[in-house]
Amino acid sequence: MQKVRMGMVGGGEGAFIGAVHRMAAALDGQVELVCGSFSSDAERSARSGAALGLPAARCYADFASMMRSEAALPAEQRMEFVAVVTPNHLHLPVVKAALASGFHVFSDKPATFDLNEARELQALVSGSGLHYALSHTYVGYAMVQEARRRVLAGELGRVRKVVVEYSQGWLAGDAGEDLWRLDPARSGASCCMGDIGTHAFNLAETVTGLKIAELSSDIGPLVPGRQLDDDGTALLRFENGARGVLIASQVSVGEENNLSVRVYGERAGLEWRQQEPNSLILKSNEGPAQVLRAGWPGLGDGALALGRIPAGHPEGYLEAFANLYRAFAAVVRGEADNGFHLPGLDEAFRGMAFVDTAVASSAAGGQWRAIPVE
Amino acid sequence: MQKVRMGMVGGGEGAFIGAVHRMAAALDGQVELVCGSFSSDAERSARSGAALGLPAARCYADFASMMRSEAALPAEQRMEFVAVVTPNHLHLPVVKAALASGFHVFSDKPATFDLNEARELQALVSGSGLHYALSHTYVGYAMVQEARRRVLAGELGRVRKVVVEYSQGWLAGDAGEDLWRLDPARSGASCCMGDIGTHAFNLAETVTGLKIAELSSDIGPLVPGRQLDDDGTALLRFENGARGVLIASQVSVGEENNLSVRVYGERAGLEWRQQEPNSLILKSNEGPAQVLRAGWPGLGDGALALGRIPAGHPEGYLEAFANLYRAFAAVVRGEADNGFHLPGLDEAFRGMAFVDTAVASSAAGGQWRAIPVE
Amino acid sequence: MQKVRMGMVGGGEGAFIGAVHRMAAALDGQVELVCGSFSSDAERSARSGAALGLPAARCYADFASMMRSEAALPAEQRMEFVAVVTPNHLHLPVVKAALASGFHVFSDKPATFDLNEARELQALVSGSGLHYALSHTYVGYAMVQEARRRVLAGELGRVRKVVVEYSQGWLAGDAGEDLWRLDPARSGASCCMGDIGTHAFNLAETVTGLKIAELSSDIGPLVPGRQLDDDGTALLRFENGARGVLIASQVSVGEENNLSVRVYGERAGLEWRQQEPNSLILKSNEGPAQVLRAGWPGLGDGALALGRIPAGHPEGYLEAFANLYRAFAAVVRGEADNGFHLPGLDEAFRGMAFVDTAVASSAAGGQWRAIPVE
Amino acid sequence: MQKVRMGMVGGGEGAFIGAVHRMAAALDGQVELVCGSFSSDAERSARSGAALGLPAARCYADFASMMRSEAALPAEQRMEFVAVVTPNHLHLPVVKAALASGFHVFSDKPATFDLNEARELQALVSGSGLHYALSHTYVGYAMVQEARRRVLAGELGRVRKVVVEYSQGWLAGDAGEDLWRLDPARSGASCCMGDIGTHAFNLAETVTGLKIAELSSDIGPLVPGRQLDDDGTALLRFENGARGVLIASQVSVGEENNLSVRVYGERAGLEWRQQEPNSLILKSNEGPAQVLRAGWPGLGDGALALGRIPAGHPEGYLEAFANLYRAFAAVVRGEADNGFHLPGLDEAFRGMAFVDTAVASSAAGGQWRAIPVE
Repeated sequence: MQKVRMGMVGGGEGAFIGAVHRMAAALDGQVELVCGSFSSDAERSARSGAALGLPAARCYADFASMMRSEAALPAEQRMEFVAVVTPNHLHLPVVKAALASGFHVFSDKPATFDLNEARELQALVSGSGLHYALSHTYVGYAMVQEARRRVLAGELGRVRKVVVEYSQGWLAGDAGEDLWRLDPARSGASCCMGDIGTHAFNLAETVTGLKIAELSSDIGPLVPGRQLDDDGTALLRFENGARGVLIASQVSVGEENNLSVRVYGERAGLEWRQQEPNSLILKSNEGPAQVLRAGWPGLGDGALALGRIPAGHPEGYLEAFANLYRAFAAVVRGEADNGFHLPGLDEAFRGMAFVDTAVASSAAGGQWRAIPVE
Repeated sequence: MQKVRMGMVGGGEGAFIGAVHRMAAALDGQVELVCGSFSSDAERSARSGAALGLPAARCYADFASMMRSEAALPAEQRMEFVAVVTPNHLHLPVVKAALASGFHVFSDKPATFDLNEARELQALVSGSGLHYALSHTYVGYAMVQEARRRVLAGELGRVRKVVVEYSQGWLAGDAGEDLWRLDPARSGASCCMGDIGTHAFNLAETVTGLKIAELSSDIGPLVPGRQLDDDGTALLRFENGARGVLIASQVSVGEENNLSVRVYGERAGLEWRQQEPNSLILKSNEGPAQVLRAGWPGLGDGALALGRIPAGHPEGYLEAFANLYRAFAAVVRGEADNGFHLPGLDEAFRGMAFVDTAVASSAAGGQWRAIPVE
Repeated sequence: MQKVRMGMVGGGEGAFIGAVHRMAAALDGQVELVCGSFSSDAERSARSGAALGLPAARCYADFASMMRSEAALPAEQRMEFVAVVTPNHLHLPVVKAALASGFHVFSDKPATFDLNEARELQALVSGSGLHYALSHTYVGYAMVQEARRRVLAGELGRVRKVVVEYSQGWLAGDAGEDLWRLDPARSGASCCMGDIGTHAFNLAETVTGLKIAELSSDIGPLVPGRQLDDDGTALLRFENGARGVLIASQVSVGEENNLSVRVYGERAGLEWRQQEPNSLILKSNEGPAQVLRAGWPGLGDGALALGRIPAGHPEGYLEAFANLYRAFAAVVRGEADNGFHLPGLDEAFRGMAFVDTAVASSAAGGQWRAIPVE
Repeated sequence: MQKVRMGMVGGGEGAFIGAVHRMAAALDGQVELVCGSFSSDAERSARSGAALGLPAARCYADFASMMRSEAALPAEQRMEFVAVVTPNHLHLPVVKAALASGFHVFSDKPATFDLNEARELQALVSGSGLHYALSHTYVGYAMVQEARRRVLAGELGRVRKVVVEYSQGWLAGDAGEDLWRLDPARSGASCCMGDIGTHAFNLAETVTGLKIAELSSDIGPLVPGRQLDDDGTALLRFENGARGVLIASQVSVGEENNLSVRVYGERAGLEWRQQEPNSLILKSNEGPAQVLRAGWPGLGDGALALGRIPAGHPEGYLEAFANLYRAFAAVVRGEADNGFHLPGLDEAFRGMAFVDTAVASSAAGGQWRAIPVE
C-alpha cells in the first residue's frame, strides 16, 4: 500500500499537539510526513524538520511558500494533504492556502476562530472538491463508533435523554498569566466551551446522530479574575424532542479527562467513558447490563475492524487518533467508505455554532437559543 | 438500653415503604414498634398489626384515635414517637395530630404536599418543643456523613462546583394508568423532582453545608402523554457563588438508583456513588486519588461510629436508614448530639421549596429563580 | 406470622459476632430473642440480657441451666432454637446440650474445634431429628444463590476451573500476644484456613455444587514468630476433574474482606466479589459480559425473592446474614423448601475436613491429599 | 535525532505479531525499518517488504543472506539491530546469525525453544558485546515500572506475598487441529505456561525485584484430548521467603487478557491490572487506598517520562510495547540508562527456566522444585 504523503503546518519543537498528530499518523504506516512549515520562525522550522528526519529542502519558512513549492513538485512526490496544527486563529488562513493549492486538509480542532470563519470555511471547502477532516479524536474510539452504529440502527428506540460531560481539573489552580486559552484575543469568545465543550457537543451529536436544536447555558469563570469561562453547563433540546445536559469544566479539581456520554432511548441506554474507552455499556429495564468490549464478539464489523490487537490489550487515545488518520488516508486514496464516521466539515461548523450559542445564551441569563445549522 | 417506643401511621399490608421503616428501626434493637394505625381501613389495620405481633388493643382504626388512646396510656407504656409513612397528602394532618398529643415525629419524605404546607409544618414543629426527623435516607450512609465533615472542615477549600444526579429507569416504560406519582391530584406539582429530585437536592446541600440560592430548570415528561415530569435538569447557583447542576430522571432506562454527588473545591474534589456507598473518593491535582472506605482508617470518628461490622463487609441502604433511626432514638432519649447530621425541619422546608422553584422556573422557560429560605 | 423464638449462648457484652447474629435475626421480624446465656460469668450474662431487654428470669448463668429451664417452659413460650456464638471449642458441648433438650441449632462457624468433633456432630444431629444451620454468611447473598442456580442448571457447561480467594490484611501488623486465633490451644490446627479459608472453600463448593476431591497446599505464617498460619494457598481438584486454586490470607496488607469466586465452565464463566455483592458477572467467548444485579430482571425467582428493597439500593452483609436466619426460621416453622441453599451439617463437616487436609498436605511438603467426605 | 535502523526476520503477510512490532517501533519515530526477511518463502518475503515500502534490494529471501548482505553495506546504511518475530524454534538460529554479523537483537518472547537453548543464548550474547532485548511487553507500561520502583525503594517493606495471574479464554472452545501452540513438536514442553505463564512469571519477578526460588505446580489440559497444558497454577516461594501463587489459563472462558499482579509487603500492598493499565493501586492498613494514575502527580520521574499525552488520555498495549522499542533504541544509540527496566538476557533465561521447572514439578505430582538461576 502506497503511503499517503502529509505536510504539516505548525507543530515545531515543543509543540505538544503536533507530535501527537505525527504519532497518530505514523502508527499504521499509511501516512508519511514529507514536508512541513513547523514554525513561523524559519530557523526553528528548519531545525524541527531536521529533527524529524526531513530533508532541508522540504522544511519551509512559512506555510505560503510550502503550498507554492509543494504544488510545483512532481505529483508523485508532493504532499497530498496538510495537517493543520497551528493556534486557532491561523486555522482558516492555512486551510485557505492549502485548498487554493489543491491540497486536502486534516485540521486540528476547533475548526476556526469564530462562527463567521466557520461559515467561510464551509463555503471554501464545499467549493473546492477537496477533502477536509477535523480532529474530534474521541470519535475515533472503536466503542464510540459502535455506540453510534447501535443508536442509528434503532437499538435504543427513540432517543429521549442525553448526558454528556467533559470535566478536567488542570485550570483549578493558578494558570499563570500567559495562558493563551484564557485570553479572549487569542482564544476567542470561550475557553472551556471552545476547548472541550466542543468535544462533548460533538460526541453527543455523533453518538445520537441527532442535531442539538437549542440550548440554555450557564458558563463563566469559577476561578476569580479570569476573563473567559473555565466551566459551564448547558441544558439541551434535540431536534427529535430529546432533552439533555452538557457539562464541561476545567476546574473540576482532580479530574483528568473525565469525558463520558450516556444516551437513553425508549428501550435501552448506553454509556461510554473515555478513561475506560474499550468498554461500552448497554442497559435496559428488561435484563442485565451488557459490557461490550473492543475486539470482542458482539460488535459490528466497523468497530471490530478498528482493532489492531486482540481484545483485552487496551488501545488508547493515540490509537483512536490514528483511526482518524487511517480513515482520512483511505479517503485521500479514494477508497470506498467503510462506515467509519470521520468528523469533517459539518462538525467544524457545528462546533463553532455551539460555542457561539452557548456564550450568547449564558450572557442572556440562560435564555434558550437555537443553534445555527448553517 | 431502654428501647424507644414507636407508633406507625400507614405501612399496612403490601405497603412497601412502611416495611422498610420497620426493618430500619429494628436493626439496632433501639426502637420497638408498640402500636399503629396501618390503614384507613380499620379491619386491614388490625390485620396488619396482628401480623406484626402487636396486641389488638394497640392496632388503631385511624390515626386520630391512636393519638388519643396512646396519650391516655401510662408514660412508660405509650409510644414516644410516630413514624409517618402515609401518602404525601396525609403527612401534614398526621404530624399535626401527633404534635398536638405530644409525640415526636419521624416522617417519610417529602415532608408535605406543597410549599405552603411546609411553611405550616415549620411553624407547628418550631412551636411544639418536639423532635422532627425526615427520611432523607441517603444522608444516613457513613460516607455521606464523612463527605460532609470534610467539606465543612475546609479540606476542599471553597466549594466551586457541584454535580449531583439521581437517575432511575423504572418509568421508561408504560407506567400504567394508576400510578399516583404521575397524578397531580395526588402527587402534587411534580413527579420526578418531588420523588427523587428532592433527594439529590438534599444531598447537595447536606454534603456542601451550603444553600442553593437559585436555579434554572428544564423539567417535563419525556414519555408522551404524562401530566407530570418524569425527568429534569436544573442549573444551580450556591450561596457562596459555586455553580452546579442537578440531574434527575425516572426514564433513564436501565438505571437502577444511580444517585451520585461530586463536589469540587479550590484544592480537592470528592465523589460518592450510592450504588457503591462504602467508598468515598477524594481527588486533587497534587497527587493520587484516595479511596476512603467505610470502617477503614482515615475516617472521622463520626463515620467510623456508624459501622456495625468490619470494613469490607458491605453495609447498604437499610443500614443507612437504620442510622437515621438510631440517631433519632438518641435524640428522643435526650442524648447529646454526636455530630451525626440528621435531616429534620430545615430539610423538610428546603425540599418543598426546591420542588416549587424547579417547577416554576421551568414553566417560565428556565428563568433563574431564587429558592425560598423560609 | 408468628415469630420464631431464639435463645443465644455466648455473645455477651463486647462480643462482636453475637451482636451481628442478633441484628441479622431481627432484621425481618421473624425471629425473637427470648433468652440467653450470654457469658460464662453469670453476672455478666445477666447484665447483657438486661441490656437486650430480656426479663431476668430468662438470662441464664450457664448454658446447661438454660437448656433445662427452657425445656421446662410451656411449649408456646420456650425457645425453639439456640444460636451458638461461643468460641469454637465450646461449639460442640453447647450443641450437644441443645439437641439433648430438643432444641434446633444455628451455629456460628467453624462448626467444631477439629475434624473428630465434626464427625461427632454429624452423628448427633443426624440422630436427633432436629435442624442445624451454619453461618457461612456469604452464601446468603442473593447473587451467590443465583450463581449456584445457574451453575447447577448447566448454564456454564461442565465446570473446568475455579479460582476462589479470601484475602484480608488485618494480621499484617503486630497482632498482640493475646490473639486467640493465633494460639493453637484455643484456635485449633489453623488460624487463616480455619477462620476464612473455610469460607472460601464453602463458597467454591456451594457455587459449583461440586465437591473438592483433593488438594495440595502451602500454608504457614508469613509474619515471623507465629505458631499458626496467617496465609496459605491450595491447589484444588474437583470431583468432576475441574481444577482450581484457593487463596486465603490475613496478611495481605490493605485488603479488607477481599472474597471472590470465579467459575469457568465449557461455555461460560461467572465472577462474584463480596465487596460488590449485588453484582454477578457472566462471561462468555460468544458475546458481551453480562452484569446481573440483585433485584433486577434476569435473575431466578429465588434470588429475586431475597431482595428487600428495589434494585440499586445496596443490600450488604447483614442482609445476607439475615437471609440465613429467615431461611432457618422457615425451616423451624416447617415450611416447604423454597430453593434457598442454607448451609448445614454437610458444610459443617466439609469445612473441618478442609482445614484438616490443608494442614496435613502442607506439612507433607504439598503432597496431594484427598479431602474426607465422611 | 537519528533514527535507529531495524531489520526484521519473520512477520510477513498475515503474521500478527510482526505487525505489532512494527507499529510499536514506529510510534515514536525513533526506529526505521530498513530491511527484512519476512518469510521463508522468498516471493512472499519480497511481497511483504514491498507492501511495507521497502526497496526490493533489501527484502531478503532468507535471514542468512540478510545478515550477510546488510553487514556488507556502509555503516550508515545497514541495519543496526534485528527484530526476531519468527516462530519460537527459529529464535536461536536467527539470533546466532545476527550476533555473528554484529547486529543487536530485539527478540519476541519466549526467548528460545527450551532451557538448553536459553543457556546457549546466554553464552552467545554475553560473549558478543551486543545488546539483546526481549518483548515482555507488559513491563513497558508506565505503571509497572512505577510499581517496580516503589517496591525496590522499600515502600512496601519486605515483600511477603505475591499473587500473579494471566487468564485468557480463547482456547476454551475447539482450537482446531492445526494450532501450533498445542503441538509439542512446534511449541515445546508447554502451551499455556510458555505462552503466557512466562509473562506472569516475568511480571512477578520484575515488579518485586526478587527471584522466585522454587515452585510447586499443577498444569495440564482442561480441554480433553490436548497434548499440552492449556491451564495451570504454581505455588511460589521467593528468594526472600515470600510466598505466592501464579495462575495462568487459556480456557478461562470469557476472559480477554486478564493479567494482574498484586504484591503485599510488611507495610503496604500494590495492585496492577493490565486491562486498566493506567492505574496502580496502593493499599495499606493505615489509611485509604491510593490510585496512582499514569501521567499524574505522585509518580516517579521514570514513569512520568513514559507518558506521551496528558493524564486521562489512556495509553495502551502498543504504547507499552513502544516503550520497549524506545528504550532499546536508546541503548543502541549508546545513551545513558534512564532507569527504565528493559527485559533482556536475564529475563530470557528465567522465562525458559520457569517453563522447564513448572512442567517438571507438575509431572512429579507437584513436588517443590528449584528454578535454575543459571
